[in-house]
Amino acid sequence: MKDEFEFIDSIKPETYKQPSLHLGIGDDAAVYQSLKGMREVVCLDTMIEGIHFTKDTLSAEQIGRKALAINISDLAAMGAMPKFYLVSIAIPATWRDEEVTLMYQGMNELANLYQMDLIGGDTVSAKESLVLTVTAIGQVEEHVALYRNQARPGDIVFVTGSIGTSAAGLELLLDRGRFGSFTDNELELVKIHQEPQPQIEAGRLFARFGRRMSLNDISDGLASEAHEIAEASGVSIYLKENFIPFHSSLRKITSFNKALEYACNGGEDFQLIGTIAEEDFGKLKDKAEAMGLQLTVIGEVRSQKAQPVYMERGGTIEPLLKNGFNHFT
Amino acid sequence: MKDEFEFIDSIKPETYKQPSLHLGIGDDAAVYQSLKGMREVVCLDTMIEGIHFTKDTLSAEQIGRKALAINISDLAAMGAMPKFYLVSIAIPATWRDEEVTLMYQGMNELANLYQMDLIGGDTVSAKESLVLTVTAIGQVEEHVALYRNQARPGDIVFVTGSIGTSAAGLELLLDRGRFGSFTDNELELVKIHQEPQPQIEAGRLFARFGRRMSLNDISDGLASEAHEIAEASGVSIYLKENFIPFHSSLRKITSFNKALEYACNGGEDFQLIGTIAEEDFGKLKDKAEAMGLQLTVIGEVRSQKAQPVYMERGGTIEPLLKNGFNHFT
Repeated sequence: MKDEFEFIDSIKPETYKQPSLHLGIGDDAAVYQSLKGMREVVCLDTMIEGIHFTKDTLSAEQIGRKALAINISDLAAMGAMPKFYLVSIAIPATWRDEEVTLMYQGMNELANLYQMDLIGGDTVSAKESLVLTVTAIGQVEEHVALYRNQARPGDIVFVTGSIGTSAAGLELLLDRGRFGSFTDNELELVKIHQEPQPQIEAGRLFARFGRRMSLNDISDGLASEAHEIAEASGVSIYLKENFIPFHSSLRKITSFNKALEYACNGGEDFQLIGTIAEEDFGKLKDKAEAMGLQLTVIGEVRSQKAQPVYMERGGTIEPLLKNGFNHFT
Repeated sequence: MKDEFEFIDSIKPETYKQPSLHLGIGDDAAVYQSLKGMREVVCLDTMIEGIHFTKDTLSAEQIGRKALAINISDLAAMGAMPKFYLVSIAIPATWRDEEVTLMYQGMNELANLYQMDLIGGDTVSAKESLVLTVTAIGQVEEHVALYRNQARPGDIVFVTGSIGTSAAGLELLLDRGRFGSFTDNELELVKIHQEPQPQIEAGRLFARFGRRMSLNDISDGLASEAHEIAEASGVSIYLKENFIPFHSSLRKITSFNKALEYACNGGEDFQLIGTIAEEDFGKLKDKAEAMGLQLTVIGEVRSQKAQPVYMERGGTIEPLLKNGFNHFT
């Protein structure tokens, strides 16, 4: 690892995109001005080599990209516009300088899509595994509250995009490695795992829509995310297995039950799950479709029952556990 | 490690202190409202077990406290008021739940001094060493810019408090461990290393003083911090060895040259170093003294010379290198 100061110089942006930024990298802290009528939205997530990723499944760029994507997805789930990010990286001797540079490039490419600025961070040595922590800052209009606790009985439950894709891609990668041989269908799943797209456009649509909604991003499986909404809102959520949208490539390579397992128990889809009054959903769906976004109803909200989440399978309704480790047969 | 959700519940504050906070822990991100006329100040720092600390030198509470103190010190160096913090923790199997809880208590005690709220974070498993990353958010008045690049020829250079104390305390701890036997003088140094006091009150005084100043916190040694100011401002800084303020206990247990080495090459004092026009200094010093804060002139700023930093030792002037590894004899 080169000198920390040289390294910081090498990753320091030459120009910043956000006009509200007063001071970026290079002082004790970054300084920016909040925008009138907006609130600040802040989150932080950590990825550890060997636990959340390995070099076998992701390239260095993809690791960087993903660490930022996870955080952007959290901003999306609040309806926020991404603005700034800070990066803490702990680098072990097993990583070459060029790999670390590529990791920052991966972050930078994704950041550019949203005009996000890298405004600070910390670079330290690690003993064994690379540890990457990203803090992301966004802004959302004062009146918007796309919180988890906004689900009400009678709401429909919907998701953006398709679910379970990333987990299927990960399983392929764990099996064959990122230089393995994949069919075209498999490659689509692999790519979605490696380069997930945070749903900022959808989050912003929901924020502007101006109705009561609950919202979560799908970083863990559907089971866990539905639990979070149900528990925060004091309701029960009823999902229908036949409603869950799968990527066409996923159904081509695996059974329905396996796809359902990926969707419920997998994670890292970084799609959004939300609830909204049934009468508001049609208009929202129209607006989403006009933007090229797919919204799919996957269930409904009822008053609180014994379990937070249930799944309708064929004719029967069974509890869907939070950890979701019940295998579907 | 207990279930992550249980753990988050256990560290989640029961009430928040900042009225501008809309949403704390428990959703995808925290949401707060900026205050009118203020700017946001954000920083992030990481501490790794075995590199930045060990259980031999710091208790679990002290480790937590220090991880937050480092960040509060960065806010102090911007003249900001601390408001919020987020914590990422990667916990290896070698840490018991109670130790982790104590670590959060250590952070919480320091945070309470400044009415700071814990508003988010991430808890993950680590393979080997504990990794603790804190993001701190503060606010500072729009007109304030206590940046590193504000030093001008003719300014005096000053520091708050005494310098080199923490490094001396660390050396004692590395030698004897935290359960070792220490004299009263030694214990004072040890305590300052273990529980550093970020200089928020001083930073706020400087912010309100309303004059041009450069400012840095002393997280590395004086040599490195003076270099940062000199390089950012395009000036040279001349320090005088006889001006550097040492803790009385430090001089009682060691030679002048050794104390100087601690001050220049050591770190983690978390005092502030700044520059200000000579005619403004007297009034600032008076105000500081009225608050019980000690400001000491340690040198002056001149136009840019061959080296960024020089030290006057006896009758001669010699370059003080950034890494400061020249031993003083």
